[in-house]
Amino acid sequence: MPPATHRRLFIPGPTEVDPGTLEQMARPMIGHRGAEFTELYRKVAAKLARLLSTERPVFLATGSATMVMEAALANCVERRCLHLACGAFGERWHEIALSRGLEADIVSVDWGQANDAGSVDRALSTGRYDAVAVVYSETSTGVLSPVPQIARLVREKYPDVLVLVDAVSAMGAIDIPLDALGLDVVLAGIQKAFACPPGLVVFAASERAMARSRRLRNKGYYLDFVSYEKAHAEGQTITTPAISQFFALDHSLDLLFAEGLPAVYDRHARMSRLSREWAARRGLTLFPDPRHVTPTLTCLRSGAIDLDRLHAHMRSKGIVLGKGYGKAKSSTFRIAHMGRIQPADVEEVLAYIDEYLEAR
Amino acid sequence: MPPATHRRLFIPGPTEVDPGTLEQMARPMIGHRGAEFTELYRKVAAKLARLLSTERPVFLATGSATMVMEAALANCVERRCLHLACGAFGERWHEIALSRGLEADIVSVDWGQANDAGSVDRALSTGRYDAVAVVYSETSTGVLSPVPQIARLVREKYPDVLVLVDAVSAMGAIDIPLDALGLDVVLAGIQKAFACPPGLVVFAASERAMARSRRLRNKGYYLDFVSYEKAHAEGQTITTPAISQFFALDHSLDLLFAEGLPAVYDRHARMSRLSREWAARRGLTLFPDPRHVTPTLTCLRSGAIDLDRLHAHMRSKGIVLGKGYGKAKSSTFRIAHMGRIQPADVEEVLAYIDEYLEAR
Repeated sequence: MPPATHRRLFIPGPTEVDPGTLEQMARPMIGHRGAEFTELYRKVAAKLARLLSTERPVFLATGSATMVMEAALANCVERRCLHLACGAFGERWHEIALSRGLEADIVSVDWGQANDAGSVDRALSTGRYDAVAVVYSETSTGVLSPVPQIARLVREKYPDVLVLVDAVSAMGAIDIPLDALGLDVVLAGIQKAFACPPGLVVFAASERAMARSRRLRNKGYYLDFVSYEKAHAEGQTITTPAISQFFALDHSLDLLFAEGLPAVYDRHARMSRLSREWAARRGLTLFPDPRHVTPTLTCLRSGAIDLDRLHAHMRSKGIVLGKGYGKAKSSTFRIAHMGRIQPADVEEVLAYIDEYLEAR
Repeated sequence: MPPATHRRLFIPGPTEVDPGTLEQMARPMIGHRGAEFTELYRKVAAKLARLLSTERPVFLATGSATMVMEAALANCVERRCLHLACGAFGERWHEIALSRGLEADIVSVDWGQANDAGSVDRALSTGRYDAVAVVYSETSTGVLSPVPQIARLVREKYPDVLVLVDAVSAMGAIDIPLDALGLDVVLAGIQKAFACPPGLVVFAASERAMARSRRLRNKGYYLDFVSYEKAHAEGQTITTPAISQFFALDHSLDLLFAEGLPAVYDRHARMSRLSREWAARRGLTLFPDPRHVTPTLTCLRSGAIDLDRLHAHMRSKGIVLGKGYGKAKSSTFRIAHMGRIQPADVEEVLAYIDEYLEAR
């Protein structure tokens, strides 16, 4: 049974899960090769296609988002990949490429800054690259990358270059109209803005990306987009899926649509704004460049705050606050506000932080 | 909420899940980088090491078993892999090797037969191979491979050859003392004899296998055993894990230990025996060679039985029976009896089949 001491999560994943979604996790199993699962699969995939305003099939992989970051490279990089990095996850994507023996370069900006379309243009103009990989919402720094601008540039000037987007901590919280933006691969774990327990990855691939994948060899079995496409056509997954997470995701998508997507996106923007306004009033410094802030989390410099004591205070209030990540671990803290979290929840969290700051 | 129409699963995965285990699936999330998860991880890993009578670390990957079948090859095959096949999953493992561009050969026996140590000896004596891959319990045919004999041969005569074992539908139902048998990689999904919802894979690697992995390049990121080993030392997973399935697995392992492992293994053997004795009385033919029967499922030739009508009858009784798989799809059916299923459940299922056969 759930321990009475459950602490509410304001960390950038897993995020707090709605009780109705949790209930879905406890449903008895069904066979994944039967009609009941196929119906569930098709329902979830259709809702995801609606969310992403796409005519493309939306696939689901059992694993973590990192796995599909790797799959995107295995299926889409024939010559050399250009990685854009503004934090830990962009850097990791480049490492993933190297770990598979792929050719890859990285264009990094300082943590807290955002990559820009101009530098992408300069790099792609060398003609060395057939893919560019970008993290939409860089969870380590709280930066939102200008993906629409980058995609527009690539689609206009470099038609053969594929745009691969890690949309973890973005999908479900900001509008990502796949086809209109001309993105080639987009992926996200379900434990962020979808507010489900982790275990499934949502992803989609453009026809350009699928054509590339069909040509590529040695992609492996579990990560081959062509297999996902074939299984999808039959309302199936390539191997035994995390069935419980399918039930949960189906329910959490219903919650998103019931609220209305514009309202969902607006709520995330509001939670970001009220966190930043509070920080400004408090004299706390935002870690990311204020022009490039993701709506799903607020990353703040800790300055003179004793982080251990702050986190302990929050825990005593039944709240888990996000710690810093990677090289910003000891100099930042993060307030994640995505998924089922409401503005009132954020206000409550900020009030607890106030309490700590005032008592110091 | 669970539909009132839940049908009990006698299919070879996912298997029927205990209500207490399902309850664990609905627990609120915890952060996977915090102390609470580390404690859970260490508890589960220790219980698994006890189950496998091993001093080695036991790892957990979020994904399906197919993924770790691929990982085993990526981490352990430097020159060429010998695949033993007696059904669909052995054949698939060979396909997985080819899908990654690895060098691999396959030694197949007729479906229903088992590979034997003699043919392994002949193949390995060529000196071409540095790994041999074998499916312990071939779920498509109901055959149990003589893994202890094969492992003994390899350990005695071919010390540098690694023994990779797919123990899906075996681990948790038969005793697999990892170190004593001298196996190098063993893997299993948790939705078979562990009777959990799918999403996690249990696996372990010998020091020989880890040494091979440390030397190999281009393994990729998500499948790299070295990363799993590093994370394990800190009580962590390499990326966001399927946390709910950790809760469930912890509980289901407690159920196994509460029953007592010898009793668990004996129960599976008894369910197999009573299914086979019933089949013999009924004049039904076992698909596998009777000398090589897995205790976790009984695969029967359908003969004159109309399979669609049989399955429909069983569904009307609230039971899902296993269909045939792959090329045996239309000529067999499978009664899976593993995990939480008890002899009395099997007797109930057999009585329903009797009912159908008598009414024909």
